Amino acid sequence: MNSCFKLIKKDGEARRGELTTVHGTVQTPLFMNVGTVAAIKGGVSSEDLENIGCQVELSNTYHLHVRTGDDLIKRYGGLHKFMDWHKPILTDSGGFQVFSLASMRKIKEEGVTFRSHIDGHKIFMGPEESMQIQSNLGSTIAMAFDECPPAKAAREYVLPSVQRTERWLVRCKAEMDRLNSLEDTINKNQLLFGINQGAVYNDIRIENAKRISELDLPGYALGGLAVGETHEEMYDVIEHTAPFLPTDKPRYLMGVGTPANILEAVDRGIDMFDCVYPSRNGRHGQVYTNHGKLNLKNARFELDDSPIDDTCDCPVCKRYSRAYVRHLLKRDEMLGLRFCVIHNLYFYNNMMEEIRNAIEEHRWKAYKKDKLEKVSGEEK
Amino acid sequence: MNSCFKLIKKDGEARRGELTTVHGTVQTPLFMNVGTVAAIKGGVSSEDLENIGCQVELSNTYHLHVRTGDDLIKRYGGLHKFMDWHKPILTDSGGFQVFSLASMRKIKEEGVTFRSHIDGHKIFMGPEESMQIQSNLGSTIAMAFDECPPAKAAREYVLPSVQRTERWLVRCKAEMDRLNSLEDTINKNQLLFGINQGAVYNDIRIENAKRISELDLPGYALGGLAVGETHEEMYDVIEHTAPFLPTDKPRYLMGVGTPANILEAVDRGIDMFDCVYPSRNGRHGQVYTNHGKLNLKNARFELDDSPIDDTCDCPVCKRYSRAYVRHLLKRDEMLGLRFCVIHNLYFYNNMMEEIRNAIEEHRWKAYKKDKLEKVSGEEK
Repeated sequence: MNSCFKLIKKDGEARRGELTTVHGTVQTPLFMNVGTVAAIKGGVSSEDLENIGCQVELSNTYHLHVRTGDDLIKRYGGLHKFMDWHKPILTDSGGFQVFSLASMRKIKEEGVTFRSHIDGHKIFMGPEESMQIQSNLGSTIAMAFDECPPAKAAREYVLPSVQRTERWLVRCKAEMDRLNSLEDTINKNQLLFGINQGAVYNDIRIENAKRISELDLPGYALGGLAVGETHEEMYDVIEHTAPFLPTDKPRYLMGVGTPANILEAVDRGIDMFDCVYPSRNGRHGQVYTNHGKLNLKNARFELDDSPIDDTCDCPVCKRYSRAYVRHLLKRDEMLGLRFCVIHNLYFYNNMMEEIRNAIEEHRWKAYKKDKLEKVSGEEK
Repeated sequence: MNSCFKLIKKDGEARRGELTTVHGTVQTPLFMNVGTVAAIKGGVSSEDLENIGCQVELSNTYHLHVRTGDDLIKRYGGLHKFMDWHKPILTDSGGFQVFSLASMRKIKEEGVTFRSHIDGHKIFMGPEESMQIQSNLGSTIAMAFDECPPAKAAREYVLPSVQRTERWLVRCKAEMDRLNSLEDTINKNQLLFGINQGAVYNDIRIENAKRISELDLPGYALGGLAVGETHEEMYDVIEHTAPFLPTDKPRYLMGVGTPANILEAVDRGIDMFDCVYPSRNGRHGQVYTNHGKLNLKNARFELDDSPIDDTCDCPVCKRYSRAYVRHLLKRDEMLGLRFCVIHNLYFYNNMMEEIRNAIEEHRWKAYKKDKLEKVSGEEK
């Protein structure tokens, strides 16, 4: 697998790049919009994603495996056809959900045995199974199967876990090479990204980063962050570990984060992000704006005829007012949730575009300072 | 209030007309899309309504009165501004919900005292209050405050009830004239439609129709149907009563119905309809097609890559498959509900356009026969 990443410009450590895949070229830094079971929660369609500037959709391997089934999606022709989404899709490995949702886990060298969080049935998933499921889904980018130890896990637990995850990565690579060579594989150009682990132990992370870099994969992620450690601990890990990942490959910070987290991580050389915050918070009526985060259920918006964010060009801000969205949220109308999710995803996607422009135009530091002030602001 | 209805063509009893209002001209026969609290359930926005051919949106006076509040909506500037919907809006009188949802009802000559179904607080609503609420909402068409007796009510109950509703109608008209003349009224051209009642007693209905016709209102509705009587009884009432309503005013059959009901009612001279079926059934995964009604949760659609209806041009059928919509419904994704509601509303709005074209082109009877077969079909 050759690298398909082009580093266009750097401003400090912030990187402006381009990732070419069989499903088209995307511009980094980018934010992936999370569609757990091949749909963004909040009634957001592929067409909506196109309209709000989404470049990469992310779906969850574990959720699609335990229900509906990757076998069915393969028979249908893969996720892209299923969702009618033609840009890149990244699938996670299932590992994170196995370690956070499923019960009765047993971890062995071969993989993990666990029970479905839906009906309790026993499932085995190892590196090969994860690759097979992701190959069935036909995603553009498949993530390596890894263990994600808790943020506060002891060194004595983390080190052997990371070493096993390294061995799993070698098996992932071999299995993906095999799957990509099969006649009936949906996406024979599926890309495998490796995942760096090591909790908050920089020395373990750095050693791991060096070793997985040798596998020359098309991309690398930092996993096991934003799982309970402080923001400062997370920034410290990124700052120390990112330099040991290949500069000519995209770097993906998994599951992160707030607008401020993203700005700080871009500043430390990260290219790709995903997070449920914009959709999950949107479903609770919390919206991101350039005047800080607002809770639209608040009574003070009752008669407010201004848009959610007067600086925003999203389809919701163009037409509807805070008062109307508040009313919909208070009346439990789906439309209120949909509006907040669409606005939030647009806000994130649009911030990434601002970030890309700022790096390109060598005004990254000034932009970052200004945007941090805006997103942490308190509206008067 | 002068008539604003133009009868363009008749084919048998079926009528092709045009209703001009301060919010624009609409073509009849038409189907009003029901947005209970100023939003269609299922995450459907004003923009969506424009895209699926909705001509008139209907909102519920009772629901908006008991929560959010018509006073707040008036202060905001009315429903049209609130929803950002610029075509006509019809509001019901609240009467139907008072008689079907609220508890502890006491009916007197002045009006009805009842308790809110939300928090039990005591509310009084009479003809004047209903007109005031609808004037606050600023709808295009306000419906008269009426009692809707049960389908199987005895003659002895129905006759005095209808006579009281007639007296209420006179009060509604006077109150609306007064409200429309006030300086701060949002829509000073609000139109009042009278409502014919009388359960399944044709003689009572006919006498009532004659008397309310004398008030020369801009439109008339048949109320108290589709509330428990058989379809045949309903068709019989329409057939006998409609001829006693003015021919130069639109006739609105409230709360009806299935595609077949609408076809039969148009055939008996009805011009306007509303019903929750397309949105409510859509939220349960039941979709209307030209091959009959389908339950998309059915396992047989698991791998079906055809659209919901291969003859349909709605935004859902243009892009997504039955298999994908089924998956969304089975996974309780809002997007599945949204897709089914959008498809169903489009199906209804599009059927009304077919109806209008058929009447205009004098092929109504042939169209009706063909469409009845299609909508009652069983897909093989």
